[in-house]
Amino acid sequence: MDKDFLLQTETAQKLYHEEAAGLPIIDYHCHLNPQEVAEDHKFQTITELWLGGDHYKWRALRSNGVEERFITGDASDWEKFEKWAETVPYTFRNPLYHWTHLELKTAFGITKQLSPKTAREIFDECNEKLQQPEFSARGLMKHYNVECVCTTDDPIDDLHNHIEYAKSKANDDPIMIPAWRPDKAMNIEKPEFSKYVEQLGEVSGVTISKFADMVDALQKRHDFFAENGCKLSDHGIEEFYDEEYTDSEIETIFEKAMRGQTLSKLEVRQFKNCFLSVMAEMDADSDWTQQFHYGAIRDNNTKMFNQLGPDTGFDSIGEFNTARAMSTFLNKLNMKDKLT
Amino acid sequence: MDKDFLLQTETAQKLYHEEAAGLPIIDYHCHLNPQEVAEDHKFQTITELWLGGDHYKWRALRSNGVEERFITGDASDWEKFEKWAETVPYTFRNPLYHWTHLELKTAFGITKQLSPKTAREIFDECNEKLQQPEFSARGLMKHYNVECVCTTDDPIDDLHNHIEYAKSKANDDPIMIPAWRPDKAMNIEKPEFSKYVEQLGEVSGVTISKFADMVDALQKRHDFFAENGCKLSDHGIEEFYDEEYTDSEIETIFEKAMRGQTLSKLEVRQFKNCFLSVMAEMDADSDWTQQFHYGAIRDNNTKMFNQLGPDTGFDSIGEFNTARAMSTFLNKLNMKDKLT
Amino acid sequence: MDKDFLLQTETAQKLYHEEAAGLPIIDYHCHLNPQEVAEDHKFQTITELWLGGDHYKWRALRSNGVEERFITGDASDWEKFEKWAETVPYTFRNPLYHWTHLELKTAFGITKQLSPKTAREIFDECNEKLQQPEFSARGLMKHYNVECVCTTDDPIDDLHNHIEYAKSKANDDPIMIPAWRPDKAMNIEKPEFSKYVEQLGEVSGVTISKFADMVDALQKRHDFFAENGCKLSDHGIEEFYDEEYTDSEIETIFEKAMRGQTLSKLEVRQFKNCFLSVMAEMDADSDWTQQFHYGAIRDNNTKMFNQLGPDTGFDSIGEFNTARAMSTFLNKLNMKDKLT
Repeated sequence: MDKDFLLQTETAQKLYHEEAAGLPIIDYHCHLNPQEVAEDHKFQTITELWLGGDHYKWRALRSNGVEERFITGDASDWEKFEKWAETVPYTFRNPLYHWTHLELKTAFGITKQLSPKTAREIFDECNEKLQQPEFSARGLMKHYNVECVCTTDDPIDDLHNHIEYAKSKANDDPIMIPAWRPDKAMNIEKPEFSKYVEQLGEVSGVTISKFADMVDALQKRHDFFAENGCKLSDHGIEEFYDEEYTDSEIETIFEKAMRGQTLSKLEVRQFKNCFLSVMAEMDADSDWTQQFHYGAIRDNNTKMFNQLGPDTGFDSIGEFNTARAMSTFLNKLNMKDKLT
Repeated sequence: MDKDFLLQTETAQKLYHEEAAGLPIIDYHCHLNPQEVAEDHKFQTITELWLGGDHYKWRALRSNGVEERFITGDASDWEKFEKWAETVPYTFRNPLYHWTHLELKTAFGITKQLSPKTAREIFDECNEKLQQPEFSARGLMKHYNVECVCTTDDPIDDLHNHIEYAKSKANDDPIMIPAWRPDKAMNIEKPEFSKYVEQLGEVSGVTISKFADMVDALQKRHDFFAENGCKLSDHGIEEFYDEEYTDSEIETIFEKAMRGQTLSKLEVRQFKNCFLSVMAEMDADSDWTQQFHYGAIRDNNTKMFNQLGPDTGFDSIGEFNTARAMSTFLNKLNMKDKLT
Repeated sequence: MDKDFLLQTETAQKLYHEEAAGLPIIDYHCHLNPQEVAEDHKFQTITELWLGGDHYKWRALRSNGVEERFITGDASDWEKFEKWAETVPYTFRNPLYHWTHLELKTAFGITKQLSPKTAREIFDECNEKLQQPEFSARGLMKHYNVECVCTTDDPIDDLHNHIEYAKSKANDDPIMIPAWRPDKAMNIEKPEFSKYVEQLGEVSGVTISKFADMVDALQKRHDFFAENGCKLSDHGIEEFYDEEYTDSEIETIFEKAMRGQTLSKLEVRQFKNCFLSVMAEMDADSDWTQQFHYGAIRDNNTKMFNQLGPDTGFDSIGEFNTARAMSTFLNKLNMKDKLT
C-alpha cells in the first residue's frame, strides 16, 4: 500500500499523481454532521471520529463476533477501539482493510498495521494529534483539500448550522450547502408518516389536510432550501416506481395514511411514483439536480432496527427477485426468536 | 488491429485463418433493405452507406454532444461525416471504434485512423470507390462472400423485391429470402394496431372480425412467405410471456383493442402469449425456425420516438427490475420538459 | 490434472495438502441411497455406480446427441458406458471432464483419459475392482474418509435403513443420519398433494382434516426423525415467498387443495410462505438447522418428466425474469410436438 496502491500501470500513476491528486474535493453527497462543521468540532478520541457512526466497520465487528456493547453500546472508547484493532487483521482483502490503513496514513501519518499489538500506541498517537487545531472538523476538511460539501437534510430542518457557518466561515474554509432529502415525506407506509406531515405543516406554516397541501408545504421548504444555497435533492428508494395513478387516487391514499389505515403495496408504490414525479418537477423548476440512491434493501433486521434505528449496518444488496422475500421471511423468524 | 486482431493465441489464429475466414456468410437475421439489393443500389457517399441507418453510430454522436441536425437531420453528407470523424477518437475501447476501422479496412482498403485530420481524404477516397461497380449493394455482398441473407419483413409485405431479385439474380449472386416478422400483429397495445389489422385483412383477402379471422389471414400470408422461400420467423419481444388465457378471453381482448379501448397489462401479456404460441405452431407446421429477439427495453424516449420512430438509438439493456420503471419515470419527466 | 490440479499458488497447495486433504468428510446434504449404505451394496459395474443416477452426465449425453435408450433406457451397461466414453472428450473445459477423471483416479487409481479408445479396458478394470470388498458402498465411503453423511428423507419415511444401519455399523463405519425434506407437504399445487397428505396421516396416526392437523402430523414425524439422529431440514424451493396470509386463509387454501380445486399463484405462494415458516419454527424448537435449496427452475420438460420423473437432467438456472416464462412457453409447445 505504497503511493502507487491500486495504480497498476504507468498511465494510471500518471493520471492520478499528475492530474487527479491535486484537484479539490467537491462532494455532492455526504453524511457529515452540519453542526460539527459549524462548531468546528474537536474529536476527543479516534474512536469518536472513526467508530462513532461508520456502520460498515460495525458490520465487520459483528461478523467477527464482537458483542454489541463494544460496537454501539456503553463500552469505553479504548475498549471499542481495541475490538476494532482485533478485527482489522481479519478484514484482509475487504476494502475496510485498505480504508482503515489509508485513513491512518493520510490523516495521521501512521503507516503501521493496526492489530492488537499496535492498538495502544496507535490509539494514543491519534488521540494526541486530535488535540491539535488542524485535526478539528474544519481542519480535517482543509487537510483533505475539500472545496465544497453537500450535507443530507430533511425538508423540516431549519438549516441554522448552514446559515451560521456560511456567515462565520473564513474565505479559505470549505463551502457547506444543504441537500434536500424528503424521504420521510415519501415513505407513506411508515407509522411515523402522519406525525411527520404535521411537523412539516408547522414548520412551513401550511395547514395540511390533503396531498396538494403537502406539496404546497414542500414547495415553501424547497424555496427556503434554495435561498440557503441548496442545488440538489437526494432520494433513498428501493427501486423506481411506474405504477399509474390519478390525482384523486393519490388524495385517497394520502387520507388513508393520515388516518392510520393500512395501504396496499400498490397504493404505496402509486404514492411514491407520484411523490417522486412532483419532487422531480419541483427540482426542474428550481434548476436543481436530483440524486437517486436505489438498489439496496434497507432495514432487514427489525429487531436491531428497533434498538438502533436506520443506517446501522443491517442493509443488504438489492437482489429483488429472491433477497427481498428472503429478508422478510428470515426477519419474521428473527422477531419471534425462531432463527435456527 | 493487424490481421490477428482479437486472436490472442495461436489456436485462435489457426481456427480463424485456416477454418472460419474462408467460409461464406449465411445470415439468418439482417436488416438489409430488399429494394437496395433488388435494384443493386449504388451509394452516393460513405455517409449514405455508413451513417444512413446505423443507430449505434447515432447514439455515439449524441453522447458526444453532436446536434441532431448532423445525425438524422438535413446537414450535408460531408457535414455528417465530419461529425462522425470528430467522434470516432472518443470511441476508443468501444466496439464502434473497431467496427469503424474494420469496415474502412475490409471494404475500402483504408488503414488510416479516422479523425478530423483524416476525415476529408477518407471521405473522398471512399466516395470515389463507391462509384465503381464492385461497390454496389450486390457488389459489397459478393466482396464479403455472402451466400445467403434473410431480410426482416412484415406479413403484409408483397415481397416484390424478393420475387424480382430471385428472377433476375445471376448464379453467383447471393440468395436473399424473406423472414417473417409479425411484431405489428402482436403489439396489441399500440395505437396503430387496429389499422394494421385492417391492412392485413385487405392484403390477405380475409374479413377480420375476430382473432380467429386474424389467424386465418396470417396463415394465408405465412403460406405466401413460404412459397417465396421464407424459412424462419423473427419476433421482437421484451420478455417471454406465460400468462394463462382462454380462447374466449383472447377474443374479448381483441375486440377491446379493435374498438380502441385500453387494455390492462395482464390482457396485453395474455394476448402476446397466445399470439406467439399460435405463431410458433404455424412455424412448426411449415417446418420453419423461430428467432426471438428479447431482453431489450425499446423506445425509452417518447419525445425522440415521435420525431424519428423506432430503432433510432433510444433502446436500453433489459434490466427489468429497475430499468423499466426508471425508463417510464424519466421518460414522463422528459415529455414534460422537466428533466433536471 | 496432477496432484496440484486447481491449486495454482504455493499457498493454495499448502492449504490443501497440509490442512484440508487430511480432514474427514462431513456431508450435511447428499442423495446417497440409505438402503445401499445399510446393505453395503456391491455395484455390478461402473455403469451402475457412475451412470445409474448422475443426471449431470445424462444431460451431457443428450447434448451429444445420444439416444435416451443409452442413457436411461434398456441398453446394456457396456453400451451405456461406451456412449459416455464417446461423450467425455467433448466435455473438455466442462467440470464433468474433471469430475470424471478425478473419480477414475481417486477411486480406481486409473489415470488414463476416458475415450472410445480406452473405454473397454477402463470398463473391465473398474468392474474387476468393484468385485473387491473395499469397493462396496461402505468401502468407498471409508476410502474417501467419510465421517458422517446426512441423506435426504421424506417425513413419511420409516427410516428403517437408518435404524438398521445405526445398530449394525462397526465403530469405524461412517455415521449416517436422516435429513428432513418435506417438499411434498409444501407443494400444494401438485396433483399428488392430497394423496400425500393421506399417507402422512396414516404414518403419523393423525386424522388430517385441516392444515392444523397436518402440522400436528408433521410434528410427530419431526420428533421421530429427531429420535433417529436428524439434526437438519432441507427445502427445495424456487424462490423465497413473502406473501402475507392469515390462518383462516391458509385453512381455505388447504381445503381447496384437498378437494382438488385449482389454486391461484398467490394462494400457492401464501401456503408455501406459511408452510416454511411453520417448519422453520419447528426446527428452531428442536435446535435443528435448515437448508434452503433455491434458485433453480425445475422440471422444465414435462414430456420427459412424465417419462422419467424429477431430477433427471431437465432443470435450469433460476433466471426468473425471463427464463421461467420462456420455459413455460417452450414447454407447452413441446407438449404439443410443435417445437421447431
